[in-house]
Order: sequence, then structure tokens, then C-alpha cells
Amino acid sequence: MNLHNPLLLDLAVKARLSPAALDDSVTALRECEAAVTVCAAAMLSEGEPERMREAVSRDMDCSDVVTATCRVLDRAGGGDAALLASLLDACAMACERSHELCAQHAGHLPHCRVCADATRKAAGACRQLRAGLTSA
Amino acid sequence: MNLHNPLLLDLAVKARLSPAALDDSVTALRECEAAVTVCAAAMLSEGEPERMREAVSRDMDCSDVVTATCRVLDRAGGGDAALLASLLDACAMACERSHELCAQHAGHLPHCRVCADATRKAAGACRQLRAGLTSA
Amino acid sequence: MNLHNPLLLDLAVKARLSPAALDDSVTALRECEAAVTVCAAAMLSEGEPERMREAVSRDMDCSDVVTATCRVLDRAGGGDAALLASLLDACAMACERSHELCAQHAGHLPHCRVCADATRKAAGACRQLRAGLTSA
Amino acid sequence: MNLHNPLLLDLAVKARLSPAALDDSVTALRECEAAVTVCAAAMLSEGEPERMREAVSRDMDCSDVVTATCRVLDRAGGGDAALLASLLDACAMACERSHELCAQHAGHLPHCRVCADATRKAAGACRQLRAGLTSA
Repeated sequence: MNLHNPLLLDLAVKARLSPAALDDSVTALRECEAAVTVCAAAMLSEGEPERMREAVSRDMDCSDVVTATCRVLDRAGGGDAALLASLLDACAMACERSHELCAQHAGHLPHCRVCADATRKAAGACRQLRAGLTSA
Repeated sequence: MNLHNPLLLDLAVKARLSPAALDDSVTALRECEAAVTVCAAAMLSEGEPERMREAVSRDMDCSDVVTATCRVLDRAGGGDAALLASLLDACAMACERSHELCAQHAGHLPHCRVCADATRKAAGACRQLRAGLTSA
Repeated sequence: MNLHNPLLLDLAVKARLSPAALDDSVTALRECEAAVTVCAAAMLSEGEPERMREAVSRDMDCSDVVTATCRVLDRAGGGDAALLASLLDACAMACERSHELCAQHAGHLPHCRVCADATRKAAGACRQLRAGLTSA
Repeated sequence: MNLHNPLLLDLAVKARLSPAALDDSVTALRECEAAVTVCAAAMLSEGEPERMREAVSRDMDCSDVVTATCRVLDRAGGGDAALLASLLDACAMACERSHELCAQHAGHLPHCRVCADATRKAAGACRQLRAGLTSA
């Protein structure tokens, strides 16, 4: 649906991406936000929160940073490549940190498997978008 | 992906919905959040923000309420039906208010058409989920 | 600082509050958001997350609902008393649920004492504001 | 109140700040979030949204990034200095961008004056905290 946002079309040009590729990136981020929020809630409620507390905390950080990044991307960050690059850096790191721990539980916890996939894709989307923006 | 969240499976039982129906509801809310955020950004950036300012403001309210509702639903609101019912009421109203104005522009602004569809579906999902929870 | 927002001055009239009283209410909500976010982070990191997991979850719900409520109040909810009343209901409940558990730990955990105070004040602010709005 | 959060005490050591100085920084960020949200709402509702649309958009970006930054700081970002540095960079930039435009209206719009002050202080707090973290 982001293809209907004229701001994102301008951002795609700036980031040297096709509009469809940029739309996929923002979608990957929103799917990541859902996955980490669900995963944090599930880990907190399950058997051993003590063993999971760092993973819960990383998912909460990730959820907050991704939420902000999606909203700023929807406004194309006012076209400010430095702001977007910095925010995409932080967002990629937040996704990778969640991925690191949830990937360890992906074999036995379905929500961690979904989360590990979503955070990997979202981190990749941030890195690609950032590279396009700053190579300009 | 919400089907991997044990909290949402419990909530589905409470709300007298199939897990798939509850998952669809949460997905409708997240799609609504994306649509209203995009639509607010687009309307603010386009030709006549003065004519659109109430629609922008309603979309911003909607985005914030829907974001909170998705997160609380992912935690199943701790199983507190009164909290969930009240929050779903507020969320349905916020979606309907956005719908009311964006539907008037759906014919000529693609982002308003997407937004009008998404807010209608999200409001319906809230009403259905609320009805299930409070009939229990 | 909310006294500089013309929307909040209009809302004060609608809610039959002095501008200063409305400003105090919004400030109480923002202090509550800080207190529950800090308290959730601290409880998650400390000795027994298993015993605290419900309190953490309630604080996370409260933080999300209060964040949305503050933002909608700053826009005066477009003057829509029904939306505001419903959101303030949900917000008061979310604050009271956090208060209920953190008050049990207020004697030995300073962040829970701060949180218990802040959620009590915020719930009261929501109830008062809601009463003013709907008696109109 | 952040002085009751053991995570923030650890972060203060890492950032080579006194706990009181770190607490002041987080408070400056939360005051900034309130100021930009209020200012965006006021500018959107007032006489000339067309002339203000970029300032509204910057305040909305700032509000979202600051909200995420406060929440991640409350969890001390899991002690990950690289994540925190990147997020504080983005946050400082977002605050400076809001400041740039609202400072131009500070003479005649009280909410812009409050916003210009709050964003300047918040940007300074981010820069100071970041410097402490990365000099370690």
C-alpha cells in the first residue's frame, strides 16, 4: 500500500531502489515489529522468563525502534538522508540483536523461529535501504 | 504469525473466535496502522493541508490508538476482558473517525482509498472481537 | 507546557476543567508512562522475573495505552468526547491494573513505589477528565 | 524517578555520567517528546498548515524517534553501546531538525518557543550521553 504514498516514491528515487523494492522493505519492517512484539509477549508468559529475559528485552527494544523507523520512513524522513541513515543503522542493529538470541530458540519455539526470520529480513532491508541512500 | 503466540490462542477461546479469525483481526489492525500513517504523511505533504488538517489529525489519533491496541492484544491484555473491551471500543471509534473523512477522498486519492478500506476492516475486527469477549 | 497548546485550552472548556488542571492531568499521564516503562525494565532485569511476569506485562500494556492517550489528548481527540471518554476509560483501567500489582511491591522495591504512585495519580486524572467530558 | 532503575545506574557508569546527569538527560528527552507532540498538534490546527507542514512533519518524526529512544534508554539498551550510540545519533538529529524550524517561529508562537527550547536541550543530552558511551 505504500506505493500510494508520494513521499515513498520520492524516497525510492533517492535510495536508488524501485518503488516495489522500497515497499517490500517497509513491509519487512512492519512484519518484524509484529513478530518481535508477539515473541516478547510469548517468552515473558512462558516457562522460564529468567532464561529469556535478555531476549525479551532485546525484542522490546527492537519493537520500539522499528515502530519509529516505519513511521519516519512513511514520512520519508523529510528527505533527510543523514537522519534516515542513522535511524536505519540503529534499526538494523536492533533487529540483529533480537535475531541473535531468537535464532538460538528457533528450533523449539515457533514464535522465536518466526521472529528470527522476520528480524533477519528486516535487518537486511535496513542495510540495503541505507546503502542506497548514502551512495547517492 | 500470531498463531505462534500462546497468549493469542487463549484469547481466541475467551473471545469465542477461531484462532485464524483472531489472527485475521490483529492483521487487519496492523494493516490499518500502516494505512493511516501513510495516509497522514501523504495528506500533510500534498496540495492542500488546510483542507485536510482534520483528516490528518484523525489519522494520527488512529495510528496511535491502533499501535497500542495491537501491542496489548499481542499480550492478550493479561486476559482482562474489561480492559480489552474498553480499548477495542476506543480503537473501533478511532478507526471509524478516520474512515469517515478518508472515504470522502477515496475517489480521487489512492492513499485515502486504501486508508478507507483498512479503517473499515479494522473497525469491524474490533467490534467483532469486542462482542465475542463481552458475551462470554 | 501544554498551556501553549490552543487545542488543550479548548479541551479544558469542554471537560469543565481549568487549563491548569488539564495540564496537570496530562503531566500525570506522562509521568506515569515514564514510571511504568522504567518499572517494567527493572522488574524484567531483576532477581525473579518469573514472580514478576504479570506485573511486567501489565506495565507494558499501561505504557502503550498511556502513550497513545497522551498523544490523542495533545490533539484534543479532534473534540470527539465519545472517543476521548472511551480512551480515558481504557487508560484508567490500564493504570489501575499496573497499580494493583506494583503497590504490593512498593515496600521493598523503590521503582514499584514510584510506579504505584504514578499509576494511582494517572488513573485519577483519567477518571476526573472523563467525568468532566461526559457530564457536558 | 529513573534513579530507581538499576539498569540506568549501570548505564550511568558506562556513559561516565553521574546518575543525576543521566536522569536529567532522560527527563530532557521526555520533555522534548511532550513539546514536539503538542507543537505538531497546534501547528496542524492553526491558521496556515501549508506554511507549517514541514515543521509538523519534523515534529512527528522527532516525537517517534524520541519515544523509542526513551524506552530503549530505560532498558539501558541491554548495555549495547553501539546500538545506543546509533540511536542517540538519530535522536539528536531528529531533535535538531525540529529545533531548526520551530526556532524560526519562537518569537510569535509560544508552543514553538517551548518546542525550540526542549529540542535544543534534548539534542544536547543525546550528544553528551553518546560522547560518554563511545569514549569508554
